[in-house]
Amino acid sequence: MSSFSIRAASLLAAAAALPGAAWAQSSVTLFGTVDVGIAHVTGDNSSRTGLAHSGANISRIGFRGTEDLGGGLSAGFWLESGFAPDTGLGTANGGLAFNRRSTVSVMGPFGELRLGRDDSATFLNALIFDPFLTNGVGGTNAFVMNGAPIQISNAISYFLPPNIGGFYGQLQHAAGEQLNTAPTAAGEYNGGRFGWRGGAFHVSGSLAKLQGTTQALDVRIRNVGASYDFGVAMPMLLWASEKRGTVEIRATQLGVKVPVGAGEIRAQVSRYDTVGSNADWTKVALGYGHNLSRRTQVYGAVARIHNGAGAQRSIGAQGVAASGTNLGGKSTGFDVGIRHFF
Amino acid sequence: MSSFSIRAASLLAAAAALPGAAWAQSSVTLFGTVDVGIAHVTGDNSSRTGLAHSGANISRIGFRGTEDLGGGLSAGFWLESGFAPDTGLGTANGGLAFNRRSTVSVMGPFGELRLGRDDSATFLNALIFDPFLTNGVGGTNAFVMNGAPIQISNAISYFLPPNIGGFYGQLQHAAGEQLNTAPTAAGEYNGGRFGWRGGAFHVSGSLAKLQGTTQALDVRIRNVGASYDFGVAMPMLLWASEKRGTVEIRATQLGVKVPVGAGEIRAQVSRYDTVGSNADWTKVALGYGHNLSRRTQVYGAVARIHNGAGAQRSIGAQGVAASGTNLGGKSTGFDVGIRHFF
Amino acid sequence: MSSFSIRAASLLAAAAALPGAAWAQSSVTLFGTVDVGIAHVTGDNSSRTGLAHSGANISRIGFRGTEDLGGGLSAGFWLESGFAPDTGLGTANGGLAFNRRSTVSVMGPFGELRLGRDDSATFLNALIFDPFLTNGVGGTNAFVMNGAPIQISNAISYFLPPNIGGFYGQLQHAAGEQLNTAPTAAGEYNGGRFGWRGGAFHVSGSLAKLQGTTQALDVRIRNVGASYDFGVAMPMLLWASEKRGTVEIRATQLGVKVPVGAGEIRAQVSRYDTVGSNADWTKVALGYGHNLSRRTQVYGAVARIHNGAGAQRSIGAQGVAASGTNLGGKSTGFDVGIRHFF
Repeated sequence: MSSFSIRAASLLAAAAALPGAAWAQSSVTLFGTVDVGIAHVTGDNSSRTGLAHSGANISRIGFRGTEDLGGGLSAGFWLESGFAPDTGLGTANGGLAFNRRSTVSVMGPFGELRLGRDDSATFLNALIFDPFLTNGVGGTNAFVMNGAPIQISNAISYFLPPNIGGFYGQLQHAAGEQLNTAPTAAGEYNGGRFGWRGGAFHVSGSLAKLQGTTQALDVRIRNVGASYDFGVAMPMLLWASEKRGTVEIRATQLGVKVPVGAGEIRAQVSRYDTVGSNADWTKVALGYGHNLSRRTQVYGAVARIHNGAGAQRSIGAQGVAASGTNLGGKSTGFDVGIRHFF
Repeated sequence: MSSFSIRAASLLAAAAALPGAAWAQSSVTLFGTVDVGIAHVTGDNSSRTGLAHSGANISRIGFRGTEDLGGGLSAGFWLESGFAPDTGLGTANGGLAFNRRSTVSVMGPFGELRLGRDDSATFLNALIFDPFLTNGVGGTNAFVMNGAPIQISNAISYFLPPNIGGFYGQLQHAAGEQLNTAPTAAGEYNGGRFGWRGGAFHVSGSLAKLQGTTQALDVRIRNVGASYDFGVAMPMLLWASEKRGTVEIRATQLGVKVPVGAGEIRAQVSRYDTVGSNADWTKVALGYGHNLSRRTQVYGAVARIHNGAGAQRSIGAQGVAASGTNLGGKSTGFDVGIRHFF
Repeated sequence: MSSFSIRAASLLAAAAALPGAAWAQSSVTLFGTVDVGIAHVTGDNSSRTGLAHSGANISRIGFRGTEDLGGGLSAGFWLESGFAPDTGLGTANGGLAFNRRSTVSVMGPFGELRLGRDDSATFLNALIFDPFLTNGVGGTNAFVMNGAPIQISNAISYFLPPNIGGFYGQLQHAAGEQLNTAPTAAGEYNGGRFGWRGGAFHVSGSLAKLQGTTQALDVRIRNVGASYDFGVAMPMLLWASEKRGTVEIRATQLGVKVPVGAGEIRAQVSRYDTVGSNADWTKVALGYGHNLSRRTQVYGAVARIHNGAGAQRSIGAQGVAASGTNLGGKSTGFDVGIRHFF
């Protein structure tokens, strides 16, 4: 089969009707991940087996690009849609949507101004200190314990420029878009994160408040993480808190990544405490990813949750619903799969 | 990060099962717009601020291509999806869909035959004589006053060929797809537009009827516009009418685009009259777009609506709902944003 | 208008936060079909005319690629979304989704292991022995007579390697994903197909069971087809059965493709029998496709259904609903359209 180059060009909404348009050269990047596997999850009284997805990395497809504006300025865009390859469906009532990220940016020596739907600053900070990147049966629970957002709509972010001695940071505001007669701008998110990377060391913290329709539904999110790459192993620590109204859940986790030839061992112990309550749980996870190439990996993980008397958390996988547990019960899961970047 | 060329190839639905396919070379174009900004809209008693989108150009992503068939003939396709970058969602229950345009065409010396969902002829003619291209707080109301369609499904269009002395034109029929036992083919659209461009002068008119489920719900659309490019300024006029049953709303608008260095000032005064009623309103709008490059623009606009005693129109922005007005009230809005073509 | 090459690159979910990634070179293929036409369908008492789509080939857009892993191994992915160009809508509540196919594969001398949503083995086998490829007014009814799936979610397939003397085959299991306390894994599909191509001869059969929520709702699918390419004509036979609970419907069809210059005549006679009932029907279809190029075809077809006393099947087209028939009645349809591959 012969094939041919795609050509991408900019054009106006009504190019045929609006003559005289001419366009600068630039490039668009198509990227994505397809990650499919098999998961088996067990609760106290039953189990479930099925085709899972995104056990190592989120399955997604996206388009992004940058344009040099001269004078040290550049513009960029990023459109990214998640999907579930076990069913082919997207996340907007089954349809594909750019609700993982859809942003336009202006970048310069001052840093980056970014507008649109994006990862929340607090989620990003939980992601990077989890050996499992929040995915699969082994992934951390520390980013969705009690109402924190993963992505956030209507966001304006300012990012510090790169190359400031290893420091990086982000301030993020997401508009609530309520009438000014409302007592509170429900949905408004205000947060930020700040970190430093130097040599093998990396430390970062984030903080945010998501406004609810009443003050009792406000969610306050805090987390701080650190990692050190010893070469033979890279341990990482994360402490996180989500407080919704008066209920606060805290996570403390110790993870490690150990390179082994073309692969990587991942392990993590996490403790989740509901303050002033016995709705606590502990999770242990062990996994391995074997790189067949830089783009293709086969992986597997096993994990177990022990619930305190007041908790009944269970392990599910993307695409395979949890089997359910009793209060104070246990849940186990494992997955194996193939992850392919393009 | 290394990168690599995308290669596009045609293949059959079941290429693996159907051997012997071989394909001509051709090109596919990926194109799109990401336009995000901030809007503030005010009604009589409240206001609203939020992240808006598509203030200068509609945010969208598309794929299109043409194929030379030899003998002066060519074939083409165009698939285009709109989306809201403030939330990442598309317009089909939140999912992306090619409901801005999804057509296949055969073109030749005779002109173009185009099949599929497409812009309505009457919308296109209102778009091109609006300095704001129907977008943002400043955009005209003259294309959706009283039930006229923007895009239309099930459409067959014939377009005159280019290069006939500046004349252009389109006939458009959209099938109602009703049973022949129905009294009327609800949804059937029959229309056309015809224009002439010569030197700095451009004039064009369009006419259509959209059938309702009863005759009283039929929508009749007429509009005619003209512009003249003096170089220092390009004034444009539009007169439009939408009659649904016995209610007719008419628009008369005078717009102007003034090039200023790398930017463009846009201004417009519009009068909307409901015939035989005081449900009338007036809109004034002033905007500016500054091109950082041919692809990237920062823009802003401010607009105000004065309602007659029987009207309560208000200014909203894409992604930010209007704040609401009283009968006879006023509404104001402004937006600033970044528009990036790719 | 200048244009520029798309560049595709792989990147990690949080590339900015996870340094050190570097990527192998590879290629991604964008492909698709836009097929739009006009259909007229007639039942006993009424008719309907409208814009139809996918009369010759399913309208779709997709992304696929392969990566050489070395040592005879390769990895691949395939993401494919169907859509209706008469309305621009996709099939997931109107949104686009990769529910035609979303798979990741590992291939080697052993064959192919494929995970994700995919065509069912039984559908594929009905498709390839239909001169109309299941599409348009002429397409076979033999793949959706009584509850058989076209695509299937949660599937794991093993395919035999190519180049084993013309033999090919597939085993397919799709997980039901039920709790192990359920009496049956509803939705579980277990099937396979096996065929042989040698010279002008092709024969293939398939077999599957789709589990219902109760045994009475199980669907058992069997079909076997053969074709021989005489050069001047290629006759093809298909026998198929779908049994849902106690109701079995069988199809016997004889089709033929006749190359005529740049075109192809397609014809088929099909008999559908409900075992032990007079809910039987017969379909005859005649069509022609004329290739304007290898990518662009104009086509037309006419078809007629004669229902037995207990049946009331009628001819519809993609995008144009059937007009309806009486028990024992007749239905006729024709379509003409343009199909374009990209």
